[in-house]
Amino acid sequence: MVIQLKQDISEQQCAAIANELERAGYAFREVITGDGRYWVAIGSAEIDIRAVGNLSGISDIHRVTDSYKLVSGMWKLTPSSVPLGNGISIGGGNFTIMAGPCSIENEEQVSEVAKFLKSNGVFVMRGGVFKPRSSPYSFRGVGIDGLRYFHSQCKANGVLVVSEVMEPEQIEAMYPYIDIFQVGTRNSQNFSLLDALGRVDKPVMIKRGFSGTIDELLYSAEYIFSGGNEKIILCERGIRTFEKAYRNTLDLNAVPLLKQKTHLPVVVDPSHGTGIRTLVEPMSLAAVMAGADGVIVEIHREPEKAYSDGMQSLCYSEAEQLFSRLRQTVELRSKMG
Amino acid sequence: MVIQLKQDISEQQCAAIANELERAGYAFREVITGDGRYWVAIGSAEIDIRAVGNLSGISDIHRVTDSYKLVSGMWKLTPSSVPLGNGISIGGGNFTIMAGPCSIENEEQVSEVAKFLKSNGVFVMRGGVFKPRSSPYSFRGVGIDGLRYFHSQCKANGVLVVSEVMEPEQIEAMYPYIDIFQVGTRNSQNFSLLDALGRVDKPVMIKRGFSGTIDELLYSAEYIFSGGNEKIILCERGIRTFEKAYRNTLDLNAVPLLKQKTHLPVVVDPSHGTGIRTLVEPMSLAAVMAGADGVIVEIHREPEKAYSDGMQSLCYSEAEQLFSRLRQTVELRSKMG
Amino acid sequence: MVIQLKQDISEQQCAAIANELERAGYAFREVITGDGRYWVAIGSAEIDIRAVGNLSGISDIHRVTDSYKLVSGMWKLTPSSVPLGNGISIGGGNFTIMAGPCSIENEEQVSEVAKFLKSNGVFVMRGGVFKPRSSPYSFRGVGIDGLRYFHSQCKANGVLVVSEVMEPEQIEAMYPYIDIFQVGTRNSQNFSLLDALGRVDKPVMIKRGFSGTIDELLYSAEYIFSGGNEKIILCERGIRTFEKAYRNTLDLNAVPLLKQKTHLPVVVDPSHGTGIRTLVEPMSLAAVMAGADGVIVEIHREPEKAYSDGMQSLCYSEAEQLFSRLRQTVELRSKMG
Amino acid sequence: MVIQLKQDISEQQCAAIANELERAGYAFREVITGDGRYWVAIGSAEIDIRAVGNLSGISDIHRVTDSYKLVSGMWKLTPSSVPLGNGISIGGGNFTIMAGPCSIENEEQVSEVAKFLKSNGVFVMRGGVFKPRSSPYSFRGVGIDGLRYFHSQCKANGVLVVSEVMEPEQIEAMYPYIDIFQVGTRNSQNFSLLDALGRVDKPVMIKRGFSGTIDELLYSAEYIFSGGNEKIILCERGIRTFEKAYRNTLDLNAVPLLKQKTHLPVVVDPSHGTGIRTLVEPMSLAAVMAGADGVIVEIHREPEKAYSDGMQSLCYSEAEQLFSRLRQTVELRSKMG
Repeated sequence: MVIQLKQDISEQQCAAIANELERAGYAFREVITGDGRYWVAIGSAEIDIRAVGNLSGISDIHRVTDSYKLVSGMWKLTPSSVPLGNGISIGGGNFTIMAGPCSIENEEQVSEVAKFLKSNGVFVMRGGVFKPRSSPYSFRGVGIDGLRYFHSQCKANGVLVVSEVMEPEQIEAMYPYIDIFQVGTRNSQNFSLLDALGRVDKPVMIKRGFSGTIDELLYSAEYIFSGGNEKIILCERGIRTFEKAYRNTLDLNAVPLLKQKTHLPVVVDPSHGTGIRTLVEPMSLAAVMAGADGVIVEIHREPEKAYSDGMQSLCYSEAEQLFSRLRQTVELRSKMG
Repeated sequence: MVIQLKQDISEQQCAAIANELERAGYAFREVITGDGRYWVAIGSAEIDIRAVGNLSGISDIHRVTDSYKLVSGMWKLTPSSVPLGNGISIGGGNFTIMAGPCSIENEEQVSEVAKFLKSNGVFVMRGGVFKPRSSPYSFRGVGIDGLRYFHSQCKANGVLVVSEVMEPEQIEAMYPYIDIFQVGTRNSQNFSLLDALGRVDKPVMIKRGFSGTIDELLYSAEYIFSGGNEKIILCERGIRTFEKAYRNTLDLNAVPLLKQKTHLPVVVDPSHGTGIRTLVEPMSLAAVMAGADGVIVEIHREPEKAYSDGMQSLCYSEAEQLFSRLRQTVELRSKMG
Repeated sequence: MVIQLKQDISEQQCAAIANELERAGYAFREVITGDGRYWVAIGSAEIDIRAVGNLSGISDIHRVTDSYKLVSGMWKLTPSSVPLGNGISIGGGNFTIMAGPCSIENEEQVSEVAKFLKSNGVFVMRGGVFKPRSSPYSFRGVGIDGLRYFHSQCKANGVLVVSEVMEPEQIEAMYPYIDIFQVGTRNSQNFSLLDALGRVDKPVMIKRGFSGTIDELLYSAEYIFSGGNEKIILCERGIRTFEKAYRNTLDLNAVPLLKQKTHLPVVVDPSHGTGIRTLVEPMSLAAVMAGADGVIVEIHREPEKAYSDGMQSLCYSEAEQLFSRLRQTVELRSKMG
Repeated sequence: MVIQLKQDISEQQCAAIANELERAGYAFREVITGDGRYWVAIGSAEIDIRAVGNLSGISDIHRVTDSYKLVSGMWKLTPSSVPLGNGISIGGGNFTIMAGPCSIENEEQVSEVAKFLKSNGVFVMRGGVFKPRSSPYSFRGVGIDGLRYFHSQCKANGVLVVSEVMEPEQIEAMYPYIDIFQVGTRNSQNFSLLDALGRVDKPVMIKRGFSGTIDELLYSAEYIFSGGNEKIILCERGIRTFEKAYRNTLDLNAVPLLKQKTHLPVVVDPSHGTGIRTLVEPMSLAAVMAGADGVIVEIHREPEKAYSDGMQSLCYSEAEQLFSRLRQTVELRSKMG
């Protein structure tokens, strides 16, 4: 059961609700986020939730049989919209394009990409400064200094920054320079990191583990929400299967299924999801029709010279065609209602 | 190397080509289909194919480094179109909708569905009469008698029949009543069956094995083509992965990749591919944007009463909405060129 | 419910049982094998099976809640033993070694291998004469003529023959020359083939599909048993996973699980299961401790010259060491009881 | 190329080696562990390593074509042995049994288990105090206080402690109370954690990611080694596949393959690897024959009352039988040499 409390609820009203839950044999946990105050009540008895719901001080109450609670679509029936600042939101009917290089390489690169994005009406730039790499001998990113110029160049162009955080200790240092914290696929069940991001007031985009189930993704999101942060964006980025013709198997089925199970917005990463440049456009357009709230794609001025992931990055002219076709496809989907 | 011979090639011309191949150390195999005559030449020496290509009697010649040959897009650069009769073709720029029940149940059902399809401008009906079932105690289909009325009711409505063949011996009995032989996912590497279908002059739709790679699908198609039948349609129908939230994981990535690797048309089965009714429409529309040449979907008047696969079948009103949205999406994709 | 009838049951006794089943709302199917006569009764009502079991003419009766019935360990509590002729049986406490080349190449090879096996106390030889190959251009086997000399050379040495059958039509031609029909991994759900092998009176070794579940393997065995043949051997041969360090991922977990779920013997193929020569011995010995009833391994005089699968074949000296260590390991396991 | 330097190498000798590497176009990175001093040199030129190897100050030099270096068996040909203190080592010919509950529950439990282990000659106890749980609402462990009594009770019985660390910040607090840091399957590619454990002087047991490849596991180990800690134990604990008959698919193939690829010891976790109590013994014994250096198994006085993982825990009498059979199997394997 998820109970959303009114902002002005009194202590007495709280006590009455707590009393009622206790009588029913329900344990509950209070979750206070920047946007609301919730009690997640868990118990096995069959009760008439109206007995609780009729008490004063409650703004909303729902039975949630899913084992994740706050992220469940059974509780919040309308899709959530995550405000990014700058008047931009992800979800709630918008379609958001995020683009940029896999790795931030230098300030000049950032400046150029930010201008390219702005001129194409794209207002979120991706780029890794801490790179999780299988081998300790691979390039591991420009680090926090890089993030600083990444942010300042973006800001100069009215573009927001999304970048991966790899451990709780990085959060504080990254905080001033970031608009969306990204949790990478290898950290999708790094519960310490999820807990820590629950205490942050900025949006978090969490990627599905490359072998993570839909339910595990929702549980991971529940960690962040129950930790106090409900600005969560889910990202499908390809799963590991027997098929090696692509780097990963982008699982678009996850999009409509997640949209049915949760109120959180869902975006798609066709670049990592396929690892093949020529598949990025068709799979991005397919993602729109599957119901995605956005895409995050890798672009590079000279993909063949990228520090990482050049094989799956679009050059500028490919990106421009993609942006234009995405908008046409979004328009069609909107008409279908 | 694939050499397409002219229809009127003389014996002397053939001998000259054979001679040249022999000199180069290439073995070759002749393949005669209803549509053409080919020599598939295999050898390891680096040769200038113009030395062969300049000989008379040759209509086309291509170096093919793929290990499948006749189905490779390296040989035939323009997409193939498979004529079904009735003036309908799959591939070559068309988008074909195929629909019908999982299992044929009785003549009345067939008649009703055929009329429904006709009235919606859909001219291929699916329906199993031999059902591959994991358990020997499950319903195993109405058999050849069912196919007979399936065909006659369809014919009365100008609708074509696609149905699964499970073994070589069924081919002859099914032949008069079928327009497209379907090879099911469990038989995707039943080489005896593929060999036998190579000797047939009707189209074959081959489903990807539920754990078959893209390359294995193309090899299986090569069996049919090299056996003498080039009327082949590939079908992506979902693969088996760790994710159990859906019955199968429909792998739309296969669509653009196959379209790059082969000239054969590619259709998508979102019904088996997901096993969830509410996912059929979004994944069908996504398939269009991914580049599919058609879809094959399960419909049933009363899905909850279907002999099999009711969970994934659309009712008529859902099907009508799907058909309409498919056409809008196809129109958009056509404009994109 | 599985009811085993006495051999001398009278028609009246049968009628009485049928009557009782009917009253309880159970449908049943009679299965007559070379070894017994069974009624598989399926119904949903809760009944006291003693009401049926007390009727005369019944030799054994068990409730079976598994959805496969005749192969279930819930019906037959003691492990089955499959007699091969020659006084050799698979299962029932024996450990059987089967060995030989992947492909039969010529008579001299067969003769040599058969003598090698005999001198090492190994009495079943494997060897393919019909080879299922992904590509139609690969070597597809020596065919029925090869099987003939395969059989005669083996017979001369008191060695039995196991070889793969690919389609129902091959059964009759192969029958005189074969001791165990092998169903390959790609045909593990070729239900037409399974049905046909149910009508044969020789043992059948069925391999798990490379993406087949444990339950699917048991269902496939149920096809053969319910078709009339209960001489069935199950074979674990590796499954397809994300891991590509081996050709397949040999799943030894299947061995103890199958031994708990079914009374049928279970053997292991570590050659295809791993595809790596150096893994064959450790995984064979591991299979023994996991509870396997036998192994089937590929050997070749000169593995590097084998027509197929040389990478995973043992040379003679490796095979001799393996045989010896297998026996030591079997001895230890026997002591553990 | 891996160069092991002598402990007493002079600065001049270092300079000479550096000079030679530079001339050959090789970059190198110095790694100093508690046990040795290494230069990992990476370059693409073909060079005669004797030109470097003949310089003074070098104790060992090897060409390593694997992309992981320090953990590669190409560099260190003899198996490594990881000393745990107490005179016990993992690897190097020993077979180590580790056992204990999934979760530490209370001090009495720990005391009892420690005594049970001691009396059975088992000297490493496992037990989680920080539990990674999919759902934020599940029991998340007794924490650092629990670890304190876990350690003191074990110490009183001469038993060592292995327990999971989930984030870099926990290391310092856990350090006094732990003998082996365990990296869990979900953190197998948490590179921040691996980096931090590279700076610790206690052994680290790293579990394979449930969808991690063999190579990824070795890369993760390389992080720890190149960070300065060469006391590393690898652990196979089951992978995620399509098969859902077990919780995970224990991949014993990994054992002999890892033993060929790396000098590090390899242990097996059959409890998480299968999730089924009756599979723990057969798979443990199989692990021995596959070449494992140890097993880590879950035991509980009353498995059905365990806070977590009761389904896969052995009770004491089952554990005693397992320990005894493990020793018999180890003895047999030792004889085989």
